[in-house]
Amino acid sequence: MKVLITGGAGFLGQRLVRALLARGTLCDAQGRSQPIEEITLLDLVPSPLPARAQSAVVCHSVVGDIAEPGLLNDLVDDRTGSVFHLSAVVSGTAEADFGLGWRVNLDGTRALLEACRARATRPRVVFTSSVAVYGAVPATGVDDDTALVPRSSYGAQKAIAELLLQDYRRKGFVDGRVLRLPTISVRPGRPNGAASSFASAIIREPLAGLPAVCPVDPSTPIWLLSPQRAVTALVLGHELAAEDLGASPVVNLPGLSLPVRAMVAALEQVAGAEVAGLVRWERDAAIERIVASWPARWDTRRAHALGFVGDDDFGAVIRSYQVELPLTVPLAAGA
Amino acid sequence: MKVLITGGAGFLGQRLVRALLARGTLCDAQGRSQPIEEITLLDLVPSPLPARAQSAVVCHSVVGDIAEPGLLNDLVDDRTGSVFHLSAVVSGTAEADFGLGWRVNLDGTRALLEACRARATRPRVVFTSSVAVYGAVPATGVDDDTALVPRSSYGAQKAIAELLLQDYRRKGFVDGRVLRLPTISVRPGRPNGAASSFASAIIREPLAGLPAVCPVDPSTPIWLLSPQRAVTALVLGHELAAEDLGASPVVNLPGLSLPVRAMVAALEQVAGAEVAGLVRWERDAAIERIVASWPARWDTRRAHALGFVGDDDFGAVIRSYQVELPLTVPLAAGA
Repeated sequence: MKVLITGGAGFLGQRLVRALLARGTLCDAQGRSQPIEEITLLDLVPSPLPARAQSAVVCHSVVGDIAEPGLLNDLVDDRTGSVFHLSAVVSGTAEADFGLGWRVNLDGTRALLEACRARATRPRVVFTSSVAVYGAVPATGVDDDTALVPRSSYGAQKAIAELLLQDYRRKGFVDGRVLRLPTISVRPGRPNGAASSFASAIIREPLAGLPAVCPVDPSTPIWLLSPQRAVTALVLGHELAAEDLGASPVVNLPGLSLPVRAMVAALEQVAGAEVAGLVRWERDAAIERIVASWPARWDTRRAHALGFVGDDDFGAVIRSYQVELPLTVPLAAGA
Repeated sequence: MKVLITGGAGFLGQRLVRALLARGTLCDAQGRSQPIEEITLLDLVPSPLPARAQSAVVCHSVVGDIAEPGLLNDLVDDRTGSVFHLSAVVSGTAEADFGLGWRVNLDGTRALLEACRARATRPRVVFTSSVAVYGAVPATGVDDDTALVPRSSYGAQKAIAELLLQDYRRKGFVDGRVLRLPTISVRPGRPNGAASSFASAIIREPLAGLPAVCPVDPSTPIWLLSPQRAVTALVLGHELAAEDLGASPVVNLPGLSLPVRAMVAALEQVAGAEVAGLVRWERDAAIERIVASWPARWDTRRAHALGFVGDDDFGAVIRSYQVELPLTVPLAAGA
């Protein structure tokens, strides 16, 4: 079977391709485990690829704009059994460039679903949604069934993509699954346009001896998940039987709720006061407004019952990041 | 000021243009009452127009496809203070023709919002949504904040259009308002592709001496609103101050919850047993599935507090339909 990963050059895409190569198999449309024969990584930039010697699986990097008409029709074919749809314009960028966010996050998702509909193969499609689909968090808390009232364009785009995917699923065009991710930390690489970019930067930059700015109040709670757990969740989300998901293919993944202050305290415990001292506190109203609209936690009983696991110690997350740092270097030049 | 009505040839559009001509004014972006100077009715077919002598307001009929690129950019200009966005592919048709539903109900709405964004005038946009945005009705009942889990493409499209409009509103591109309509009855004209089409046909056809088929079980409850009340609600929804709506521009309109059996009983009371006997009961699983996914009622406290009014006697609704029947004849040939 063939696998398509959109956003293949991103940190989740890169971890996912490694996890898939290590696994070697995925369930097909009938729920039977099949060897992975080919993986295509689509992104705006070349996706680093594993060296050919590492695996018998053929990996391709395709450079292109997901919303470009026709592109996905060529990338999804009758052998495509699985799609991991990770590509997105992130929250801060989608807020700043209104047209771009809708183009990639809505039109791109729709183009993908249309490419799947054009085939009769009903691929499994795992879509990463976000805390940002919420916005007005009710006093009773958030669970998988809480109404979506996004307060950012990114959140609206993710909420809309969820509804789109669910209708394509209901009509039988895809076997879609939606995983709502907490804020991922520690994300390797450089700061990006996500409003949550700081949640990784305040750990990653100090560990590299660089200063970092925290744009929200130290008491601001963040709902966190490590990249390791996120990738495990992507694979589990794919492998679950459709029956296990029941009426709703949307799962709010487990997370760890910590005030930013506690994240920096964990950094201090792991790496010392000098490293933690590289964090400068400088509030940014635009970022605070977006971050404050995200839930600080949600009910994870359904996710746990389905087998999803979160982190329980942010210090351990930081230590894993340090250990795995070499892994965050691209595998090889994109082909 | 100029007013644009999409779906201008439809029964709500036709009633609305009459109501606007009778009124003569609408609030502008600053909430000041302004004389209506021009009304454009857009539809796939020519919209019947009032005779010129009837009013000083210039009325145009524009024939075109709302999703056609560029069309709305010509119809929304700097003088357009108000848009009533009524056009839609109805539920049964959207379920049968997947591509068409998404094209009109999503792309059409987006084209309209983009045309508004291109102007700096922030028009008031009144959008008609539907009971169909719900689907999994929680045991605790439905209010304005219940999560949307549509079970039809039409419902998904309306839910998505709501989210789109709310993001354009949040960004200040439009002063949008969303009115979720109950099933409208008695709608004049002919049966259409709406799954709810029967809710008017079982009254309208027998009153005209024609047989009608009811495709759902007699005990099926329907959440009803008369066209008269719906048009009053469209105008009120437009005239409300943005502050009155608070954080959410979405209002679930009041309705009357009746089992279909009671609707036919009301027909019998108004028009006699012979007329009511023209209703044949013949269940259709596809229609039953869609209709059963809609709430039979919802909490209307917020709508009532805002001044919206529903019907309280379906017999009176039928009698109004009989009295106003001449009004349902087109005003004049479209120009």
